[in-house]
Amino acid sequence: MPTAYSYGEMKLETPIFLELTHQRLDSVEKRMRIVSVDDHHPELVSALEHLLSAGGKRIRPRLVLLAADIAHADEDSTVTFAAAIEMLHTATLVHDDLIDGSLLRRGNPTINANWTAGATVLTGDYIFARAANLASHTGSLALLKRFSSCLMTIVNGEVTQLFSRDKNITFEDYMQRIYAKTAALFELSMEGAALLPGCDPSLRDPLKQFGYNLGIAFQIMDDILDFTGNSDELGKPVASDIRQGLITLPTLLFLEAPGQNPELQSRIQSNELADEEYHQLVAAICDSDAIDNARKVANTFLNSAEDSLNAFPENPAREALFSITQSMRERRY
Amino acid sequence: MPTAYSYGEMKLETPIFLELTHQRLDSVEKRMRIVSVDDHHPELVSALEHLLSAGGKRIRPRLVLLAADIAHADEDSTVTFAAAIEMLHTATLVHDDLIDGSLLRRGNPTINANWTAGATVLTGDYIFARAANLASHTGSLALLKRFSSCLMTIVNGEVTQLFSRDKNITFEDYMQRIYAKTAALFELSMEGAALLPGCDPSLRDPLKQFGYNLGIAFQIMDDILDFTGNSDELGKPVASDIRQGLITLPTLLFLEAPGQNPELQSRIQSNELADEEYHQLVAAICDSDAIDNARKVANTFLNSAEDSLNAFPENPAREALFSITQSMRERRY
Repeated sequence: MPTAYSYGEMKLETPIFLELTHQRLDSVEKRMRIVSVDDHHPELVSALEHLLSAGGKRIRPRLVLLAADIAHADEDSTVTFAAAIEMLHTATLVHDDLIDGSLLRRGNPTINANWTAGATVLTGDYIFARAANLASHTGSLALLKRFSSCLMTIVNGEVTQLFSRDKNITFEDYMQRIYAKTAALFELSMEGAALLPGCDPSLRDPLKQFGYNLGIAFQIMDDILDFTGNSDELGKPVASDIRQGLITLPTLLFLEAPGQNPELQSRIQSNELADEEYHQLVAAICDSDAIDNARKVANTFLNSAEDSLNAFPENPAREALFSITQSMRERRY
Repeated sequence: MPTAYSYGEMKLETPIFLELTHQRLDSVEKRMRIVSVDDHHPELVSALEHLLSAGGKRIRPRLVLLAADIAHADEDSTVTFAAAIEMLHTATLVHDDLIDGSLLRRGNPTINANWTAGATVLTGDYIFARAANLASHTGSLALLKRFSSCLMTIVNGEVTQLFSRDKNITFEDYMQRIYAKTAALFELSMEGAALLPGCDPSLRDPLKQFGYNLGIAFQIMDDILDFTGNSDELGKPVASDIRQGLITLPTLLFLEAPGQNPELQSRIQSNELADEEYHQLVAAICDSDAIDNARKVANTFLNSAEDSLNAFPENPAREALFSITQSMRERRY
């Protein structure tokens, strides 16, 4: 039986979402591990196994599987595409953890915790190459165009974040950042299924819309959780974003309320606050309307996601996708 | 008029090779610079421009253009493929320079000379994504499979080199390393042209063989030049490989001659030699038969490359490829 599903660090049970995907997910796991005909270095193979066996929620490949149900994609290319999507995600995490100096992910040591920076860079590159290779086996050139441009979007977002310390970020900047960070790959996971061989291209737009809106809501919820979760469940300190100078939606909404010090945002972005100030600021944000207002913003994206589901006939996959938006919306934490 | 062609750091004039490619190479240069529809961060765009404007010999895209002449590929997909190949090569150089800590390439500052490691990793990732995106616009899924598996081979070779310090490398190890480092992409540059839409797949094997053999010979010649060139022309100290613990063909051939200290190789690989010992060793290698013997090995690969040209009808592209092997073979330095 499928186990309880969690996303972000929230426990979230949506039995239909799990049940409709868990069997095919085994095939996805196997496909990600298929060693190519070439004889690759054992350290690379074991690094990949270390990364894949660390678990993770596999929400992206699960979305691919459900989108493929709606688009009537054939199972083999669907499984290959789902594996490619998770592989791409894994590669970006390897480089992210190196850049951020993170030593733990999902409770396991990161690649950079055990290896040199050089070996970590190459491991990420190797996994990017595997992701592209898997994608090239879906039989869809249109998908490959989107797959590679999605990676450009993701990387562009990270570069923008690296170079954005010297100007106060706006709501638009935030939306662009979370699109690149999360929604772009959610969007591709859904949209890509309609690009698989033999699928109906008219389904592409509504699937894409669902993925986009779910991804944005997912990241906003994750950014809220950074304030409201407890550090044991989060596996990281509460409000770790703000302590790293990262402005997310709750902070943006808090800062734009009347009476806030106009210099506070740039001081946060420049990491100028003392420990005690962080503590007070996080408490003030949590006590303010900002959290609820951020949740309301997320809900508008969940509404849009649900609207796009209306383009599809009623079926279990649609129901499973609906269950995800519902359970995200109803969650209180 | 095309200017004198140089490869490695050698000046090499093969007028027909230049003349047949220089006009279309302008289109390749333009295609590499086409900014995607998305609005990408100006720092990324200028980093890419910095890399592309630093020049380089463009031997790989030139090989694509000539192979496409032989395979009768259409010009548009040929130019796109040639741009993809050079972009992939550029991405690998960005990460290589970071890993090696190199601050100059072709006389220009590397990306890591001016940027943090994180920004350099992301710049390389972005260029990989652009390379894959260009390749996806060639219209050939078969090409994309090879393109992505070639990147896996290249990265696997670099990882193998990183982890190989603790065992004496053999001739087979050396061949695998230079295949991954150089010949794999030469091979793909030639072979890939036959995979472009509408091309005759029966040309694939002889084109591939030419690319493989030329690439192996090219790297051996480059490894010889590391001993025999002068540091001004090389733009780096003479025998920089051996000083970094890297065993190349001249060293391997020198060490296997009778009377050599069997422990010398592991001492080189572990960077245990004192400055004076390096000096003596390099002089001994240059005075030995090892250089000539390495050149003989390269010539056997050039012979094979020329043999595969016999599969094609006589035409200017074939003549241009032949001129390259001839001028590599005849070079004295």
